[in-house]
This record gives sequence, C-alpha cells and structure tokens, in this order.
Amino acid sequence: MTRSRHSANELTVEEQASLTSGADAWHLQGIEGHGIKPYMITDGPHGLRKSKSSSADIDLDNTVPATCFPPAAGLSSSWNPELAREVGVAMAEECIQEKVAVILGPGVNIKRNPLGGRCFEYWSEDPFLAGHEAIGIVEGVQSRGIGTSLKHFAVNNQETDRLRISANVSQRALREIYFPAFEHIVKRAQPWTVMCSYNQINGTHAAQNHWLLTEVLRDEWGFDGIVMSDWGADHDRVASLNAGLNLEMPPSFTDDRIVSGVSSGDISSDQLETMAQGMIDLSDRASGAMSIDGYGFDVEKHDDVAYRAALESMVLLKNEGGTLPLSSHSSVAIIGEFARTPRYQGGGSSHITPTKITSFLDAMEERGIDARFAPGFTLDDEAQDPALTAEALQAAQQAEQVVLFIGLPSQAESEGFDRTTLDLPAKQLELLDAIAKVNGNVTVVLSNGSVVSVRGWREKVSAILESWLLGQAGGAALADVLFGRAYPSGKLAQSIPLDIEDDPSMLNWPGEEGHVDYGEGIYVGYRYYDSFDKAVAYPFGFGLGYASFSIDDLRIESVGPNRVEVSVVVTNTSSVEGAETVQVYVAPNDSQVARPRHELKGFQKLHLRAGESRKVKIALDERSFAYWSERFDGWHIEAGTYGIEVGTSSRDIAQSASVELEGDGMSMPLTEWSNMHEWRTDPIGSQILRDMDEKGERGELPQLLKDNAAAEMFLDSMPINSLTVLMGKDGARLTAYMLEAYARATS
Amino acid sequence: MTRSRHSANELTVEEQASLTSGADAWHLQGIEGHGIKPYMITDGPHGLRKSKSSSADIDLDNTVPATCFPPAAGLSSSWNPELAREVGVAMAEECIQEKVAVILGPGVNIKRNPLGGRCFEYWSEDPFLAGHEAIGIVEGVQSRGIGTSLKHFAVNNQETDRLRISANVSQRALREIYFPAFEHIVKRAQPWTVMCSYNQINGTHAAQNHWLLTEVLRDEWGFDGIVMSDWGADHDRVASLNAGLNLEMPPSFTDDRIVSGVSSGDISSDQLETMAQGMIDLSDRASGAMSIDGYGFDVEKHDDVAYRAALESMVLLKNEGGTLPLSSHSSVAIIGEFARTPRYQGGGSSHITPTKITSFLDAMEERGIDARFAPGFTLDDEAQDPALTAEALQAAQQAEQVVLFIGLPSQAESEGFDRTTLDLPAKQLELLDAIAKVNGNVTVVLSNGSVVSVRGWREKVSAILESWLLGQAGGAALADVLFGRAYPSGKLAQSIPLDIEDDPSMLNWPGEEGHVDYGEGIYVGYRYYDSFDKAVAYPFGFGLGYASFSIDDLRIESVGPNRVEVSVVVTNTSSVEGAETVQVYVAPNDSQVARPRHELKGFQKLHLRAGESRKVKIALDERSFAYWSERFDGWHIEAGTYGIEVGTSSRDIAQSASVELEGDGMSMPLTEWSNMHEWRTDPIGSQILRDMDEKGERGELPQLLKDNAAAEMFLDSMPINSLTVLMGKDGARLTAYMLEAYARATS
Repeated sequence: MTRSRHSANELTVEEQASLTSGADAWHLQGIEGHGIKPYMITDGPHGLRKSKSSSADIDLDNTVPATCFPPAAGLSSSWNPELAREVGVAMAEECIQEKVAVILGPGVNIKRNPLGGRCFEYWSEDPFLAGHEAIGIVEGVQSRGIGTSLKHFAVNNQETDRLRISANVSQRALREIYFPAFEHIVKRAQPWTVMCSYNQINGTHAAQNHWLLTEVLRDEWGFDGIVMSDWGADHDRVASLNAGLNLEMPPSFTDDRIVSGVSSGDISSDQLETMAQGMIDLSDRASGAMSIDGYGFDVEKHDDVAYRAALESMVLLKNEGGTLPLSSHSSVAIIGEFARTPRYQGGGSSHITPTKITSFLDAMEERGIDARFAPGFTLDDEAQDPALTAEALQAAQQAEQVVLFIGLPSQAESEGFDRTTLDLPAKQLELLDAIAKVNGNVTVVLSNGSVVSVRGWREKVSAILESWLLGQAGGAALADVLFGRAYPSGKLAQSIPLDIEDDPSMLNWPGEEGHVDYGEGIYVGYRYYDSFDKAVAYPFGFGLGYASFSIDDLRIESVGPNRVEVSVVVTNTSSVEGAETVQVYVAPNDSQVARPRHELKGFQKLHLRAGESRKVKIALDERSFAYWSERFDGWHIEAGTYGIEVGTSSRDIAQSASVELEGDGMSMPLTEWSNMHEWRTDPIGSQILRDMDEKGERGELPQLLKDNAAAEMFLDSMPINSLTVLMGKDGARLTAYMLEAYARATS
Repeated sequence: MTRSRHSANELTVEEQASLTSGADAWHLQGIEGHGIKPYMITDGPHGLRKSKSSSADIDLDNTVPATCFPPAAGLSSSWNPELAREVGVAMAEECIQEKVAVILGPGVNIKRNPLGGRCFEYWSEDPFLAGHEAIGIVEGVQSRGIGTSLKHFAVNNQETDRLRISANVSQRALREIYFPAFEHIVKRAQPWTVMCSYNQINGTHAAQNHWLLTEVLRDEWGFDGIVMSDWGADHDRVASLNAGLNLEMPPSFTDDRIVSGVSSGDISSDQLETMAQGMIDLSDRASGAMSIDGYGFDVEKHDDVAYRAALESMVLLKNEGGTLPLSSHSSVAIIGEFARTPRYQGGGSSHITPTKITSFLDAMEERGIDARFAPGFTLDDEAQDPALTAEALQAAQQAEQVVLFIGLPSQAESEGFDRTTLDLPAKQLELLDAIAKVNGNVTVVLSNGSVVSVRGWREKVSAILESWLLGQAGGAALADVLFGRAYPSGKLAQSIPLDIEDDPSMLNWPGEEGHVDYGEGIYVGYRYYDSFDKAVAYPFGFGLGYASFSIDDLRIESVGPNRVEVSVVVTNTSSVEGAETVQVYVAPNDSQVARPRHELKGFQKLHLRAGESRKVKIALDERSFAYWSERFDGWHIEAGTYGIEVGTSSRDIAQSASVELEGDGMSMPLTEWSNMHEWRTDPIGSQILRDMDEKGERGELPQLLKDNAAAEMFLDSMPINSLTVLMGKDGARLTAYMLEAYARATS
C-alpha cells in the first residue's frame, strides 16, 4: 500500500498512544489537526450491523436496516467466489451510505468440530475452500474503498472458554489447517485489517503473540494493514503493542500504560510509532469512501444479490426418484413453523436488521402457488402441542406431497456457546416420524447454521434440501428451487457425519482446565473420514442438482517444477440447465510423514445448459503438493508420485491419474543422530558405508556386526552414535570414522 | 532399604565414576578391595536369557537353557497376580543357579496401539491391570534375593524410531495412563532397579530427564533403587548422572567424562557419590543370593509353573453351542503348522532357550488322543503350497471337528519394529475360509503375541481360543483345555478392535519427524471404545469359560473419606468347575474435565466348584476416583456421584450402583481471570455479587448489564477483567470492586 500523507512521527507519544485504542466501542480515535478521522467500524460479516444507539456500549439489537445476506454457512456452499465478491460489493455500498469505514469480517476460522457455536458464520472444514471463497468478500468490499477485517486470527474454533483457553496445536496443523485461509487472503487480497482472536495459541494470547502477529502475519505473509483485537481480547496493552497489535477494541482507557511503557523502555518509541502509523494509514485508506456524502444504496438490487446468493447456498442432499422439483399442480402441504417464520441468520455479533424479509409462505403467495400450511411445532423449547401435531398430520394425509421445514431454532446455536448435540429438537423429529407414516412423499427443508444429524430419519423421507441460513431473500429462493424455477447448486463445505462421536476432535472437545489440545492434528473433516475409511452421512463437496453431468478427458500438463495444470471436459448430460462444481484433490503417495488420503487443491463451478460441454483448466501450484515440515521449519515437497483426482465430492471421484514430481530437493544433513537407514539411503552416506565395508574386509576397520546377525534387526533404526551398544569400542570407532568421512565429503 | 556396609565416599572420583557404567554388556563394574562385585545382570522378562558366549557383545541366540514362561501378553490374561508371583519365584531360582543378580523385567509399558512391536511382552492397555499383575513378578523374584528391573520408564510404546523419538504426552495422560503401573509397583514393591527407556518424553531423553528420574520417580514415589539405561539409551553421561541415572548400559567407556565433569563442576561430587552409592547398595543387596553356590533349580517343577501359567493365559473368545471342550471320542482333524511347531515366545531381547518344549501334537500323543494332522501352511512368507491346502481340506472333510491352529509367525512381530497390520497372513485366512466351507465345526486356536484381527472370519468358525504365546508348556496346556481336562479362564487385558483404524492413536502413529504426539490423551483402549460408544470385536476384560456364573448382591460401604469397599457374591451356576474374574469399574458422573465412561479400579479372580458361591470384597481407595488435574498439578477428587460397576468385562456389567463422595475440598482461588460463572458458583464470589447488585440498586455502584440483556449470553464465560467490553469504564469499576471485596474476604 502507499504510505499515508500523515506521519506518526509528527505526533506526541500521548497522541500516538491514543490511536492504538478506539474512541468508543465502534469508533476509531481521531486527532483533529492531523487529518485523522474518528471513523466508524462495525460488525459484519453477512451484512452491516450498525448500532442505532447513541451509547457506545455493545447493544446487539438496535441496528439500522441492512441487507441480510446468507451467512457463511450458506454462502460457502456456493463454491462461488465471484458471488461472494458481489455480496462484498453490496455490503461496501451499504457501508458507504452508513459512513462505516471497515466492516468486520469475513471470519475464516476452520470448522474443527461441527458443535462449534460460530460454525454458522465460518466457511468450511477445509482451509483451501475457506480461503478461496472468503477472498471474494474481501475483494468485493475493498473494491469500493471500504475495509474488511479478516478474523479471528487465529485458531478460534470454539466458544467454550474462548477468552481464556489455550488452543494447543502442532506447528504442522497450524500451517496446513488453521492458517492457510488467512494466508491466502492476506497474500492475495491484503485485507485492510486483521482481527486477532480471544484465545491463546500454544500458551500465548493472540493479542500478545509476537510470533503470530508480526513474524508470521507481517514478516512471512507480507501483511501491510493493521491488527485490531477482538472486542475484549487485549489484556496487556504493553505486550500487545510489542507483539504487533495496532488497535485495542473496545478501549480500556489505559493509554497511560502505553505512555509509561515508552518512558520505562518496555515499549520502543519506534514500535509505538509503527503501530500508530498503521492507524493513520488506515484512516487515509478510508478517507475516499468516507468523504462520499448522501449516498444511498439500491435496496432492491441488494435484495436480488441476497436472492442469488441464497439460491446457490442450498445443498440438495437427497432426491429420491426426482421428488424435486415439485409440481405446482400437485397438492402440497407445507408443514413447519420455519416456513412462516424463517430462521435466516445466526445469533451474536453478526445479528442484523434486514431491509425486508420474505418467508417461504410469503413467496408462495407472491408466486400464486396454493398449498395448505400447518406450523407443526413452535420454535421455543416448550413441549409439543398435540393440537399442532394433529393439524399437521391431517394436512399431510390430505396432500400428495409434504414439504416439511425443520431446523434449529435460534436459541440452539449462537456466538457465545457451543452446541452439545447435532440432533434436531426432539419434537420436530417426532413430528417428522408421524408425518412420514401417513405420507410417503416428504421433502425436508433444513434451516440450520451448523451441521445437524440426519441419522435415524433420512431414510424416511424422499428428499432433503439443506438450506442453512439463507438471509433475507431465502423464502423466495426456496420457493423457486423447490418448484423448479431455479435449480439447487450448492455443495457441502463440510462433512455431515453420522454421529458426532465419529469426529476425532471429540477426544479433546471442548478442552479442560484452560487448554484444548488439537490431538487430531491435521485430520479435520474429510481429511479424517476419508483417510481412515470412516462412513459419513454425506461427504465433503457433495450436493445434487436437477441436471446430471459427466466429467471426462482428464489431462495433466506440467507447467514448471512441481506445478501442473489439470483439465477435464464437463458435460451437462441432462435435458435441463444446471451447475456442477468440479473439485480437484491431490492424493500424496508414499511420504516420510502421515498425509491425508487427499486434499482439495482446486475447484471450479460451472453453470451449463442442457447438453452443453465445457473444458475446465485448474492450475495446481507448488503448495498443492507440499506439507509443512517441522524438521525443515517450512513447506516441503517430496519427490515422487502424486494422485490427481477430479470429482464432484471427496467421495465421488470421476477421473484420476498420477503425476511424477521432482520435489524441492531439500534433504537433512547426516549427523551422529542419523540412523543407519538414513546413512544407507543418503548418496554420500551410502558411499561412506561402502568404503567402510571395504576397509573392514581389508582389516583396516572393525567389521559392522560381524558374527552378530541377530542384532541386524536393530541396526536400521539405530542412530550411529549408538553403535557401541552392538559392538562396544569397535562401534565407537566406526561412528567416528563415518562422521569424519562425512565432514570431509561435505566440506 | 538398609544402607550398605560400604560407602561411596571411601572411593576415589574415578572409582565412583567407574561404578556408573557396566564392566561389559552384561556385568556391573566391581571394585576389588571394597567388596563391590562385578555381578551379572541379564534379560528377562519371561525367563532368563543368559548368554553362553564369552563375548561381551549382544548376541541374542546363544543362551543357557531356562524355563520359558508365557510372555506378558499371555500371563496378563490370567488376571492372577499370585500366578505371576510364582513365575517370579521360579525365575529367581534360575537366576541363583546361573549367578545372575538382576533379571531385566517386567516391562509395564501401556499397549497404546496394538501394532506396537513389543506388545507381546507388555501387559495391558490398562495401567491398573498392568501394575496389579506385574507386581507379582517383582515380588516373586525379589522374595528370593534377586533384583528386577522395571522397564521401560517411560512412554516407550512403539519401536519405530525408538532411540530418538519424542513421545509428546500431556501431563494428565502421563499420570493417568503411562505412569500408574510404574508408580504402583515402585510404591508397593520397590523393584531394585528401574530401566529408563530409549525415547524422549516431551523433548528430553528419558536417561537425561531429571523430572522423570528424580522428581517423579524418587521424590514423589520414593524409589530407593538404581536407575539403569536401556541398552544404548544414555547419550550424555554428564546429563544423565545429573538427571538421576545411576548406570549406563552397556558401557561406552567414557568414565573420563564423568571425572572431568566433576572437575569442571558440571557434576557435583555429591551427586556422583549418590549415584555410585546406589550401585554399591545394589551390589550389597545381591550379595546374599549371589553367595549361594551349587544351586540347581527344579526343571520339572518350573515346567509345571509354566504349564499352569499357560492354562490361565488362554482366552476363550467364542464357543458356539458348547463346541469346546472337545470330546476325545469324536474324530478331530488338527490343522496348522503351529500345532507341530509352536510359536511360544516373542523375538528380540526376551528370546530365550527353553529347558524343554512340548508341541500340541506331542501333548496329544502323550495323552493318547488320536487325531489326524495336516500342517496346512508353512510359517515362512512363501506363497501357499496347493498340496498343503489339499491335504488339509481332505483332513477337514473327513473329520467331525477341526482344530485349526493359525497365528503370527515369528517374523511378523518382534522387538525392533512395529507391525503395520492386525491381519493374519493371507494364506492362513484363505485356508480357514476353505476349511470352513467343508466342515461346519471349526475351532480356531490363535498363536500371536499381539492382537490380531478377527474380522471377516470369526463368523465362519464355531470356537476361538486366543492362546497368545504360551511359553514352553503351552502344548500340554492347550491339549488339556481343548479336551476338557482343564478349563480356560483368561480375560482380555486389551480390547480386540474391529479395525485398527478405529484406534484413536492411529491419527498419530507412529509419529513423524522425530516426535509422536499422543493426541488421544487418556483415551487408550476401552477408555476410548467405551466412552465413545464404538463397536469392538471383543471388549477389554472379556473371556468365556466352560462354567457359568452369576454376580449378585452388590454392596458398597464407605470406609473413610472418598474410600469405599465393594462386595458382591459370585456363584458358579454350572455343573463344572471354572473361574470367573470380577471386575470393578468406577464411572465418574459430572466432572469439570472429560473423564472416561469408566475405569478398572479393582478385580479378583475366583476359581469356584460347580454350585459354589463366594463373597468378594474389593477396596477402592481415593485414587480410584481421582483424576490428574493440570490446574492443581496433582490428583483431584471432585465431590459428587460416582457409578460403581461390577462385571465380567468392560461391556458386561452385572451389577451397578452409585456412591456419593465428599471430594477432597480443593478449589481454585478467584482472580480477575475467573469468569462470571466461576464467581457465581463460588461461595465467597456469589456473596460479593449479591452485595454488588444491592449496591447497584442503591446507586452506589454501576448496575451490571443494565439495559443490555442481549449481552447476557456472553457474560457467563467472561473473565471479570473483560467487563469493560460490555460496560466501558463502569465495567472496570465493577472488576475493581469484586477483586477488592474478595481480597478482603479471604485475607
């Protein structure tokens, strides 16, 4: 980015300090006379949540109207970054109208466990998908001169004890699972701000984590924006400033600690100046859009973006015998309170006031489709009302088809707490059971932000449409998809397990005594289920449509060292328009480390007319093949064979082939701690061993394991500093010979 | 123990240093003129492995004859510590004859994963069982004035990269899973020596681990013997001496490093003297038994101990329709090379030369039982010989019953490498399949040191007898059990999973890049399968017999704070003699931490005649209810309700009840980091909150979350140092009030 016209070194220490916390809960600190404005920043991430209240307190309810787009749980199922970009542009326009300089989002934490309370506003269990979708939001918002805040950096995967808990994670899992979505977006789209998370990472709070905020984020990834704390995540102004946190939110009114920290030398004035400069630069960046007055966004146009986003957010999980789309001529019973009272967004800091809201029933009416409605159940936690059951059953009995809207009421999931079950409310499932007994043609429409279990009931129904939370235009989108005026095209951004106990993170969920150990390492989501051959209800990447497709003619072309381009031809083999999402997985073969069976490394969504065919090219860069090596403290590409799989879910692979890579050529030098196997397989080491054997035969050196064949089984894994164990002093002599010869050969 | 007559302070530094490593691979260093003898120490643990060779090198084959008892995989299934004690006494007598002062064993590492190469010589997946069985060996051996070496301390649960790898394990898993077997035996039986393991624990090699060898082993547990290195486990004489390692084995001939370490001050002369004194004391301890000349042990009597141990080592897994015992009158085909060539012990440092060996076929002949034999397959890795198949099928077709001996050949499991599969060799399973098609009455006898999979074949056979490795008298024991002259009474000391991929340690097995992370924490074996409701082939503690039993009249009596005595009445409800093992599991209810569904905390094996009834009492001490709290850095017993389950396997609970415990009363003091929930549930904290609310109503303090109900959902999990987030400066005022009031109330 360009440096600001204003320079922090023109400010006093007190003024610099003042810039490093907010003026109140939603405003930056300005400094008059230095052109630094007290701009507003406020929550997203699926629409603008600007408080109407004059109070600076946190008040989640009283907010100005804004378009409510589908939260990430929905939008992520679109596998369509361009759509995310449109949502971003629209949100930026609303920010311009409302004079908000930065909208807080997107949140790209990994859905480590589907019980996580904020899963509804995160993108995926897969970091590649999360990064490559959410980048659309950042690019879209920032294309209009409004800032984003990529959050929550990092490893904030649960609500339980989130302000204190230490997420203890291996370096490899951080680099391969929990960081890449952040890394990709920072490197490619430079979000203006990053929001650090509440939790500790391996014992240090994110806000005070120099390694995280400075070494990784800025030095490695080249981040050039500012880091702010999540609201209340900064517990030590001095430490956080030193770690690289520019902005404490909301203010704790402790700027005096910064000032005295500079006096005492606990903070260098350079560091304070750098952090303050970031705030000035942010103010400058925002000044263009913030100087636009009287702008009014187009409510209808944004509602249409929300509608199109909702269309692509739905995932058709089951459609037996072409149950869907429904014919508007057959008699349909609509059952379930959600059809009348949609649940369209999640709870917590992302909760907004929509500009308008259309329920499914409203949309039916608008479209002139007749259907009998019965609410079936209430959305509270009260026991089931038998009258509602009776009414619903009667409607179900009299209709040819039933569309049953079930899901999670708002109290079942929110920021602030984790769920304890994947189950839908018992009264809804009991109603489903009763309905399925009287009507053999039931379509279930699910409304939920996080995965719910389909166990025990999915066999009883003909079709299942997972609609997640669809934003304000969800009712219209649902009506059009169910009745065939539009087609579903979403794909699961997360696995739907059979049972939450199948998830390996359950062994360490949600942690205890102040820490949560990520014992499953890199085996999150399909990386676990697919690598360990475990059954799931629906696999990652899965989603049906009304059309059908073929994927043919896989070709793989080398386009440089450890880089390839994959191409396939996709054909709509049906008589209706539809969309398919081509997914490319890389399947490492033999490796020195454990690697997932395969990992998503590319995807492309295609809308194709009936019979249409199109060639798709997807590039796989070096990172597609690399793992994070703790030994090399960096990415490492092994030489060898890699499978390339192209399919429509992680378990529906249409085409596969393999490619031979030369690797990056990195190897570890041999030492006394290298074992005999490593010496034997190293080019220099093996030559030394041959020389040593020859000298042994000539009597110039002891012979390795002469007359002691039984000990051979121990030899391969033995570091050469332990040869004395098998050979006494002769062993020590061989060790010395090997090390000396190696030093000579490599000097 | 009594202090030695000889004192290390009479020795020179050089002499002291010399005592801290062996004279050669199998002898201690002696010092003439000071009464310190160069006694021999040598391998166990299931029989004496004394090298015949004059060489000091490690030579595993050329050893004097000794009774081969069942390795721990077998003996552990006996659930009979008294039997282990008899084996120990017998081994000590052989040591006295052979002038061996210390026999190296038992090895009580936990079977973290059944692929571990040394599982055959370890005891259990459960630390309580391992400790309470293996203690018999220590008590038995040491009752005759011979020493044991409790090994491999600690966390040596795999062979892969064992000399280098760091086992990274949480403190809680160390204390609850990997340490208790060692702790129990050290505290109750004081083994003369402990052998440290090869691996690192959380980054420090066991030999150099002061925390492990001094703080935990000596200071906490009161160990008064010496610690020796596993052969080649000591990589730094100075560091290991400081850590508390008395003896390096085998010698690296680097005593000069000790001497110069003392000169340079890297080792205190006190520490060297303490370590050397341990060696002198060991020599003194051994001098009694070592002064016995001309002793000869009773070969037949020891063979009988081996026979009885073998009887109790077998676990009857399946016995459909009373297939077993076999009638010697029916026509039986014996198939499988193992019947002629028994595999009766494992490979590696424990491999011994038996005094005699009786195969199953030999035993049949001795007993005058006629049966046709066909080897069926060879024990090598060659492809199946069709002639052997044909011969076996013919025998099977012509017999009324088949006894099929299958198992793991010796090359399939050994010290030195881990297995990569639980599967039996394919050619054996193919033969089984073919035989089961021609004979509907097949009994399988398994010979294997570590668990093998029964998946895909167990339904095809009528009976399965898991005989593990039975030692030299296994043939006779098998004949007597199969033909009903004795009864099987073993119980599984480890779960038999359906699939190795079900084991949660597979996500981190066998580690990579120098470390293996114990991501499953405390969820090892049945603690995982039972807590997460996962199916297994056969559960922990399971084993059938020829008799049947009832367990009735569970009573629980409090015998002190957090201590109870459990009693039940066990009745042999059948018409034949038999044995049942009563198992007591404790099932914690609500807890602040994740706890296994239940854990074994007591057991008692009973041999009962037909119709006999006996009352069993089992005491549960405080430890039975405690978990290791990382927060308290110690054992913690929560107040509350605990289930007491009494049964015959972890999944066959006959009686259960619950008991209310008062707990240990420990609690954490409240701080600014305690959250509102913790303040509310603390007696002092809740009073302060009540006072604060009253003051708020009177206008003397700000009111907590007045007019901000929406923020309530965040409050419970909020540490009170974050109240500013919700209430700005008013929040800071409340935090200060609470901390001040708490300080006043607790001062």
